[in-house]
This record gives sequence, C-alpha cells and structure tokens, in this order.
Amino acid sequence: MKKTIAVLPGDGIGPEVTDAAVKVLQSIAMRYGHTFHLKHAAIGGTAVDQFDNPLPQQTIDVCEESDAILLGAVGGTKWDSNPAHLRPEKGLLNIRKHFDLFANIRPVKAVPALLASSPLKEEVAKEVDMVIVRELTSGLYFGEPKRRSEKSAVDTLVYTREEIERIVNQAFEIARTRRGKVTSVDKANVLETSKLWREVVEERRKAYPDIEVEHMLVDSAAMKLITDPRTFDVVVTENMFGDILSDEASVITGSLGMLPSASIRSDGFGLYEPVHGSAPDIAGQNKANPAAAILSAAMMLKHSFGLHTEAAAIEKAVMDVLEDGYCTGDLAGDGKRTVSTDRFVTKVVEELERE
Amino acid sequence: MKKTIAVLPGDGIGPEVTDAAVKVLQSIAMRYGHTFHLKHAAIGGTAVDQFDNPLPQQTIDVCEESDAILLGAVGGTKWDSNPAHLRPEKGLLNIRKHFDLFANIRPVKAVPALLASSPLKEEVAKEVDMVIVRELTSGLYFGEPKRRSEKSAVDTLVYTREEIERIVNQAFEIARTRRGKVTSVDKANVLETSKLWREVVEERRKAYPDIEVEHMLVDSAAMKLITDPRTFDVVVTENMFGDILSDEASVITGSLGMLPSASIRSDGFGLYEPVHGSAPDIAGQNKANPAAAILSAAMMLKHSFGLHTEAAAIEKAVMDVLEDGYCTGDLAGDGKRTVSTDRFVTKVVEELERE
Ligand SMILES: CC(C)[C@H](C(=O)O)[C@@H](O)C(=O)O
Ligand SMILES: CC(C)[C@H](C(=O)O)[C@@H](O)C(=O)O
Repeated sequence: MKKTIAVLPGDGIGPEVTDAAVKVLQSIAMRYGHTFHLKHAAIGGTAVDQFDNPLPQQTIDVCEESDAILLGAVGGTKWDSNPAHLRPEKGLLNIRKHFDLFANIRPVKAVPALLASSPLKEEVAKEVDMVIVRELTSGLYFGEPKRRSEKSAVDTLVYTREEIERIVNQAFEIARTRRGKVTSVDKANVLETSKLWREVVEERRKAYPDIEVEHMLVDSAAMKLITDPRTFDVVVTENMFGDILSDEASVITGSLGMLPSASIRSDGFGLYEPVHGSAPDIAGQNKANPAAAILSAAMMLKHSFGLHTEAAAIEKAVMDVLEDGYCTGDLAGDGKRTVSTDRFVTKVVEELERE
Repeated sequence: MKKTIAVLPGDGIGPEVTDAAVKVLQSIAMRYGHTFHLKHAAIGGTAVDQFDNPLPQQTIDVCEESDAILLGAVGGTKWDSNPAHLRPEKGLLNIRKHFDLFANIRPVKAVPALLASSPLKEEVAKEVDMVIVRELTSGLYFGEPKRRSEKSAVDTLVYTREEIERIVNQAFEIARTRRGKVTSVDKANVLETSKLWREVVEERRKAYPDIEVEHMLVDSAAMKLITDPRTFDVVVTENMFGDILSDEASVITGSLGMLPSASIRSDGFGLYEPVHGSAPDIAGQNKANPAAAILSAAMMLKHSFGLHTEAAAIEKAVMDVLEDGYCTGDLAGDGKRTVSTDRFVTKVVEELERE
C-alpha cells in the first residue's frame, strides 16, 4: 500500500513524539511492504512564529495532498497572550473545520501495568474500556453569533439534525464493533439543542436494534465517569460536553500519556493526535512519553487505511514494552524502569521486529 | 431572633430529609432562644400532581413572605415524559430566576470517616476542601434565542459584565474567609463569553490584592478535580460549566450524601438544598441520608441569618455522629453502624443537646 501522510509536529513535545511515531510507521512499512510518504508541515505556535498564521496555506495544501494527518501537539505559554487569530489552538480549530473532521474518537482503556498511576482506586479504574465520540465541528465552538461588546458577550450553541445524525451514526457503528452499548450524553432538561439531540438518537436507534441505548444528563455523566467508569462502552456527545468529558475520562485510568485520538471525516480521511498536550516544560529533553503518538499512528492505520493487522501489531508492541516494565518518567513507579523517549521507541521497534 | 422559613419538601426523599432538617432547626431554636416559623409549600413533581405547575403561585407567595427557603429535592421518573413546563426541574429553574438566586455555593470537604466510600485513592481525596461558586441565573440556561425547528435547534450563551461581576465578587469574598485562592474556570481559548469572564476577573482582582487568582480552562479543571483536587480553594464559573464541575466534584470525596448547597441573592436571601437528588428508589423507607439537608439548614443559619455559632454547632454534631461510626446505608462500610434516617437525626439532636 502507498500512502501519503502529513506530519504536523507542532509545539513543545510535539516534534519528539511525532518523530517517535514516524519511526514506528517506518518499521511497519518495511516489515509489511508499504510505502508511507511523509510530508512535514507547520502548525500551531511554531507556524505562528514562522508564518504569522497557526494554520498556513502551505500546511493546508500538504494535508490536502495527503491521505491522513499525524499531529503532535499545539500550544505553549509563549503564545498565550497573542490575539485569538494568532493562537496555536486556532490552528487546531481551523484544521478541524477546514477538513470537516466532525467525529473525534477517543478510546480510554485501563492498562493493568499502569493502574498504580491512576487517581482512582484500582477496583474502580480496572477494566475501564470506553470510547468517547465527540462532535467536533459544530456547537458552541463555531455557532454564530459569537461576539462581544463592551457590556456583554454571546456564543451560540446551534445544531442541525444532519450534524447530529452523522455523529450519532458514527457512535452506533463503533458500538457494533464493541460491546454494543451507546450512552448519549446531553442536557435535555435544559437545552433545546439537547432535546433535538435526544430525538435524533431515538430515531437513529431504530436502524441499530442490536445496540443498547441509554441517555444520560451531562452532570450525571461527569459523576459516573468517576464513580462507575466501567459501565460506559461508547459515549456520544456534542462538542463542548465532549471536550470536558473526554478530558475528564482521560485521567481516570492513569494512562493519559498513552491515549491516542482520531478526528475523522465521513470518507475515512482523518487527523490523529495524542490526547496529551504540548508539555513545554519537558520539551526537547528526551523525556516525553511517545506512546500516545505511536498509538495515534496505529489508529490512523486502522481507521484511515484499513490496516488492522499492522495497527494491532503496534498496539501489542507498546503493551509488551510496558508489561516488561519500561516506561517514561510520567509513569515511573515501583518496579518500573524509567527510560528516555528514544529508548522507549527503540524498544517498541524491537518488539515489532520480533513479532 | 425571629425568622420565617419556607420549607419545600419536593419529591422522592425530599420530604424525609427536610423533616430531618426541621427537627434540627427546632432543637437549635429551643436551645438558642430563636423562633423559626416554618411554612410548607409544594414544588416539583408533587406540585405538578397537585396544582399542574412545578412552582405554583402560592409557593412563590410563601417564599416571598419568608426569610429563606429550605428545599428537599425535585424530580422522578414519574414525570420524565411530561412536557417541559410540567417537569419538576422547571420548578427549580423558575424559583432560581424568580428570586434572582444568582450564586450557587457548594462546599466539598473530605470527611476522614468517609474516605473509604470515595472512588479516589485516599491520598488523592484526603484533605480536599473547596467551594464551588456557580453562576446560576444566566448563560445557556436562560439565554435567548432558545428554540427549535424541525431541522435545527439553538441555545444562547450570553453574559453581561454585571452578571459576571457579581458572581466573581461573591467568589472573592468567600475566598477571603478561606485560604485566599480563587480558580476561575472558563474556555477563553474558544468562547467570547469566557474572554469577557476572564477580563472581569482580571478587573475585579484589583479590589482583592490579598487573593491569589488562577485561570483554568474547563477541560483542564475537569481533569484536575480528579488528579489533584486539593489544589482548589474557591472555584468560580459560569452556569453550565458549574453544573458539570460541581457534580463532578461532589463525588470525589465519597460524601455526596453529605453535601449541602446554597443559592443566594445579593441581600442574603437564599435557597438551601442538599446536592443529592430525589432518589425515588429509596423514598419513604426511612433510609435516606439526612446529613446533606441538615447541613443545608446550617448553611442557611450562617449565610441568611448570620447565626454562625448555631451553624457550627450543627456541623460539629453531624461530624461527631459520623465519627462515632453511625451512618445511613449509602455510607455503610467496615466498622460502621448503619442506622435509619430517624435514628441518625435523633443522634444529631442528642449531640446538639449535649454540647
Ligand atoms: C485546544 C482546544 C481548542 C481544544 C478543544 O477545546 O477542542 C482541545 O482542548 C481539545 O480538546 O482538542
Ligand atoms: C435539575 C437541573 C435543571 C439542575 C441544573 O442543571 O441546574 C441540577 O442539575 C442542579 O445542578 O441543580
């Protein structure tokens, strides 16, 4: 298989973790006889510094000529006081909107070797295995009017039926490949958009009689993610709720440094990035955990290229390295061997070559 | 002191827990020489059943003639399919708006005797001691337009400078009576309302040079409440974020059944209610934990009536009963003596009489 991948390292630890993922992709290419053309381009604060634009046109061009996007991370205090259009995050918001990446998919799975790092009691966090499906290109993030005056400010939460339908369908499809349960999260006792959301879920479920459906209010969901996270399989929700709940979910198993994400379009094109941020404090020190970026590359192989065997090989290699006790500093603990970013990647590649 | 208190028992376990709080108030009245006139009125599903209105005019009248409101809980599956204007929650939303109860105050404090019930590791949850200050009468809950058509729906997130100022001032004032730190939570990298919010916090802090101020994005806050809840002192945020974060915070210490809340107006008038819901499954069984309602009554004495000694006496009595090992079923565990609602109240009243 021949594929072109846009690599957008971004800021902070972004470059080192995307480098790591690229090494793993290269090893996969060799072993399975694929060709991955990698085209690097700038995004985020780095792009602001170089091009005065967090998502320059040449980056969009590179992505348009590619089959998928691998992103590191964007952001850093350096750019925090920039005006909105020159902020790193704006690059992320723009790329989502430009490529219509409406479905953000975030698996959260407990890794037995890492439960000691979880803030939750082991009996609460163990066996957690859920996917959060967040609508990513509508809602409060993009709704108009969105403006302010001296005396007030307004944002608009708007959803069309079609926007809800496609994300809900996505969740149902994912549930079919898993335990067959969808939890739809809304605030239907207060919001009109949530009432429409709930209605659409009720309509769409008719096409998925095999899937169990549950509606949950966002405040209850925020509690249940902590008290009883194992009850979730696929969680589907709108943009703002998804932002909050997926970050909340990302810390419950203690493996934030391991979590990948995909932001995809209907045709399979997608952007893949680690859930963790740019961590400027440890950037350039060969300390960052590259697992999330590597696992994001695995998600790309699976979702965008249909390379399931290759994706599974990467996932297994990462888990094996962790089970052998190797980890980066963020996961250090009793009986663990703390290694550098480079060494961790080398270990993963060795595992891949051994398999 | 002579005060009139509107008692709105509401639905589910609401009546039994407000009864409990009333007994404690009566004991306080006797011991400290106060007169509390208690006027009962209907709200929520019970009011829908009786008056076809979740907040009947006669209830509003009773509250207007009172110095404070004590509420049990509203809601229940029985009314879940009612049209919006006949749903129990509507009673709550209407009473908040009618009385301009703009500041929702929710203390979350770890109780050593209950840490075993927390989903968090003891070393994470112990010593948690924060207050969440949520704006309660504006934002997405009430903003116009708020409507739907066949093909789409819209809600509006709007804030005026004055609305933000008064809630932020409230948070600063509370911080002065505590550890002197305010964490303002927003989504300033995406929302216009959040940018205004942040600006107002920056302006208001000038009047409170003694208070440490920190800004936090709502997604980060959702993580930090789990990974590092001890870092929070006073958290201030807008209505929808506050709904989510305060419920999230309510489960971290394992003492949800103990948490009181206040929803207050600028002049000190306020509505006091337990954070827990109406729990219809255990209603009428003399099993409900009355601690949250009792502690809500204590908050009323403090905030609305300035009776600090009396409030402290109630708080101490409840803690003493818990430390003696007595608790209701929701907190049952090793070395605990599970007692009924009535028995728990009797114990608290005995402690009060002993002090
Ligand atoms: C950087 C920010 C705009 C972004 C979001 O809120 O969507 C981030 O928090 C995320 O979840 O990817
Ligand atoms: C019942 C509901 C409308 C209410 C809210 O969202 O404000 C509740 O969740 C709360 O937090 O008091």
